[in-house]
Amino acid sequence: MSKTLDFLNENHDRFEQELVDILKIPSISSNPDNNDDMLVMAELLKVEMSKIGMKNVQVIETGGHPVVYSEWLDAPGKPTLLIYGHYDVQPVDPVDLWDSPPFEPVVKGDKIFARGSADDKGQIFIHLKAIEACLATQGELPVNVKLIFEGEEEVGSIHLEEFIKDHEDMLNADYVVISDTPMFREGYPGITYGLRGLAYLQVNLRGTNTDLHSGSFGGLVKNPINALVEILAQMKDDVGRILIPGFYDDVLPITDNEHNKLSKLPFSPKEFADSIGAPALFGETGFEDLERLWARPTFDINGIWGGFQGEGAKTVIPAEAHAKVSMRLVANQNPEDIAQKFKSYVESLIPDSMEAEIDAMHGGFGYVTDLDNPGLQAGVRALKKAFGKEVDFLREGGSIPIVKVFADIIKAPVLLMGYGLPDQNAHAPNENFSLTNFHKGIESIIYFFDEVGQL
Amino acid sequence: MSKTLDFLNENHDRFEQELVDILKIPSISSNPDNNDDMLVMAELLKVEMSKIGMKNVQVIETGGHPVVYSEWLDAPGKPTLLIYGHYDVQPVDPVDLWDSPPFEPVVKGDKIFARGSADDKGQIFIHLKAIEACLATQGELPVNVKLIFEGEEEVGSIHLEEFIKDHEDMLNADYVVISDTPMFREGYPGITYGLRGLAYLQVNLRGTNTDLHSGSFGGLVKNPINALVEILAQMKDDVGRILIPGFYDDVLPITDNEHNKLSKLPFSPKEFADSIGAPALFGETGFEDLERLWARPTFDINGIWGGFQGEGAKTVIPAEAHAKVSMRLVANQNPEDIAQKFKSYVESLIPDSMEAEIDAMHGGFGYVTDLDNPGLQAGVRALKKAFGKEVDFLREGGSIPIVKVFADIIKAPVLLMGYGLPDQNAHAPNENFSLTNFHKGIESIIYFFDEVGQL
Repeated sequence: MSKTLDFLNENHDRFEQELVDILKIPSISSNPDNNDDMLVMAELLKVEMSKIGMKNVQVIETGGHPVVYSEWLDAPGKPTLLIYGHYDVQPVDPVDLWDSPPFEPVVKGDKIFARGSADDKGQIFIHLKAIEACLATQGELPVNVKLIFEGEEEVGSIHLEEFIKDHEDMLNADYVVISDTPMFREGYPGITYGLRGLAYLQVNLRGTNTDLHSGSFGGLVKNPINALVEILAQMKDDVGRILIPGFYDDVLPITDNEHNKLSKLPFSPKEFADSIGAPALFGETGFEDLERLWARPTFDINGIWGGFQGEGAKTVIPAEAHAKVSMRLVANQNPEDIAQKFKSYVESLIPDSMEAEIDAMHGGFGYVTDLDNPGLQAGVRALKKAFGKEVDFLREGGSIPIVKVFADIIKAPVLLMGYGLPDQNAHAPNENFSLTNFHKGIESIIYFFDEVGQL
Repeated sequence: MSKTLDFLNENHDRFEQELVDILKIPSISSNPDNNDDMLVMAELLKVEMSKIGMKNVQVIETGGHPVVYSEWLDAPGKPTLLIYGHYDVQPVDPVDLWDSPPFEPVVKGDKIFARGSADDKGQIFIHLKAIEACLATQGELPVNVKLIFEGEEEVGSIHLEEFIKDHEDMLNADYVVISDTPMFREGYPGITYGLRGLAYLQVNLRGTNTDLHSGSFGGLVKNPINALVEILAQMKDDVGRILIPGFYDDVLPITDNEHNKLSKLPFSPKEFADSIGAPALFGETGFEDLERLWARPTFDINGIWGGFQGEGAKTVIPAEAHAKVSMRLVANQNPEDIAQKFKSYVESLIPDSMEAEIDAMHGGFGYVTDLDNPGLQAGVRALKKAFGKEVDFLREGGSIPIVKVFADIIKAPVLLMGYGLPDQNAHAPNENFSLTNFHKGIESIIYFFDEVGQL
């Protein structure tokens, strides 16, 4: 082990230079103009994997951008890790808000600035360099490892679920490891063990065939905007509790253990509100702030429109009104079930003067890993050893739909060991990644392999 | 009188031809390209007024399109009528939906089709031809008459209030007569004795400085669209009653007499709903349909917008949400007072997590004339005599702001004796005017002069 850690020190600068090199490739998956760059990036990863000693290295077609796969399976009897990451990056617009060109990496202080530095090239490189260090100094890994890096994460992982289903045997593993999430605070490693799901719907109300004059018709007809606000106002009560019948039936409450860990995280509502310019925060009463963000479901109206939106005054009763709504879900809520409950509830509120269409558009399950699971505990020990600090137990308020796909098909716990920082600007100008986290990250994965090898 | 009625028969065809001639002038007040046509139209009216024997005929500058004024004041001791109308017309778009060119009048059956035929050239011509018939056959009028025809009604009568104030003495009268409203049903004359007013406001809510991701923030912040719908849903109760404190304080209930008259008007909710494609009508319980439309105030959301309105799903918590709202008012509600009451009520509902701006944009008083007023009664007798049918007593659900201006400055009852039909398409393609109503209208005004002369 000490030889492996020495290897890290000796190759410290080379690792950074290699990181700079892969960050120069503009692998923007959403832009067809970058299709060749996507292939270049996939080939670079293939070469890198071969070079560090991974086996069965393949660039595999998917119908979209390819998956890069490799494996090292020479640790019989030891657990197998399936490490997922993505080599595609977000678009760079608005490019004039970048302090330096997004594909010309610049180091300032401890941070490297480039598109893809945190999301996710810097993080997949942590795994590659950890593997390289182990194989170079020990000639073997203490665990079996499979790497799967996709090129379509930023466009919704469109072909990945099918790919995983088609390659279920090849991808079979005891644990899935993903490094694509931020830490909660600088200096403190974090492990994310829960994600929220989503149910997204659109409500369309129609009152009449055409827009009407509010003088000539007002008082005789139901205005669809009035009807829409009256319906949507009945989704939550005064204290923020959602009123859709049966909505909370399957919600898994957080355990006392989770609650204790969550309470230890520093969170200032005042600072948080100031950072987004909110006069005050608001949420469901009876729960802590982070609990509301991570472990409680929500109901938000994401868009609403109808009638006259221009300058001045127009006295119209519009024919139609529309809203897009979504509910963040937590384990074990089923998005289809929730969409159906929303639909039934809204339908029960539609007045007979209105026609309604309610379309479920999009959904995904939430996810939570048992804190006692041995792989997660191995990750906690490894992170603590590398960073010298207690590990933050985190959840994520958003969704990473692919996590649930891995969990369901591979039937293995998914460990989210992320090395980004809260101010990493993942989808914004000036994306950056902490070099301290890069190097400590490599160290932590070496410890992690070792810990998992002992399970 | 019989000589005067004979004159109508003898000149029946000439009157129609003269109507065709004035309908050929494209006096669209909103289009600067038609400014010359506006002047031509004003000059034509001046010539016509002189020709029929009106005195002190003037085209008076206003800062916009001119007012055409004339008078006949040789009936000392008799009441004075101030007859208002407008010679400007609506734009013609979409012009390809017209069956014949809007300024090439065509007679089909009983109707003449042309822009301005009903609104309002055909109706001001009724008064001119009635005056012509009286002066040609009797050498005098039984009442004093002042004519004021403006050229800016279709652009909000922007200069008229100032004009009336500046010419208060010149315009002094016992009754103001306006023929610019439709009858309720074909064959039955109608007199409109009430109009609704208006208070129009915009509500802007801001929750944060920027749009937020609903996963990363949902549960911690108040969504301004959620807040907006919760606030606006509290404006009305389940039975359509408005909940703004003090909203109904000044509402003048309709009298038993009015109620009786209103009950006699044929109205089929089913046919009305079908005509606008509404599954069913809706309104405040405890009132008849036409009462709700004409004599009860309303609250309508005329526009609402916020967040994502495009195709697909975007999980945004928007920074802002907006609504335009208006209340139709009835006598004796004060639009400023109502706007203030709305504002205070909404402010009391704003959660401390939101910043709000509420802007009063626009307002106007409602109006109602006493049914017992002798001028109105004279009108009723005249209309009945000319049309041979009982007179419908009507109100209008919309606003004609200038009515209240006349009532306040001239301090005289305003009589709305309108000769349009419900399907006249006043602001739409294929505007039309009934020639039966044109001729019976002239007859009714001759009777009306006679009736008022006897007051």
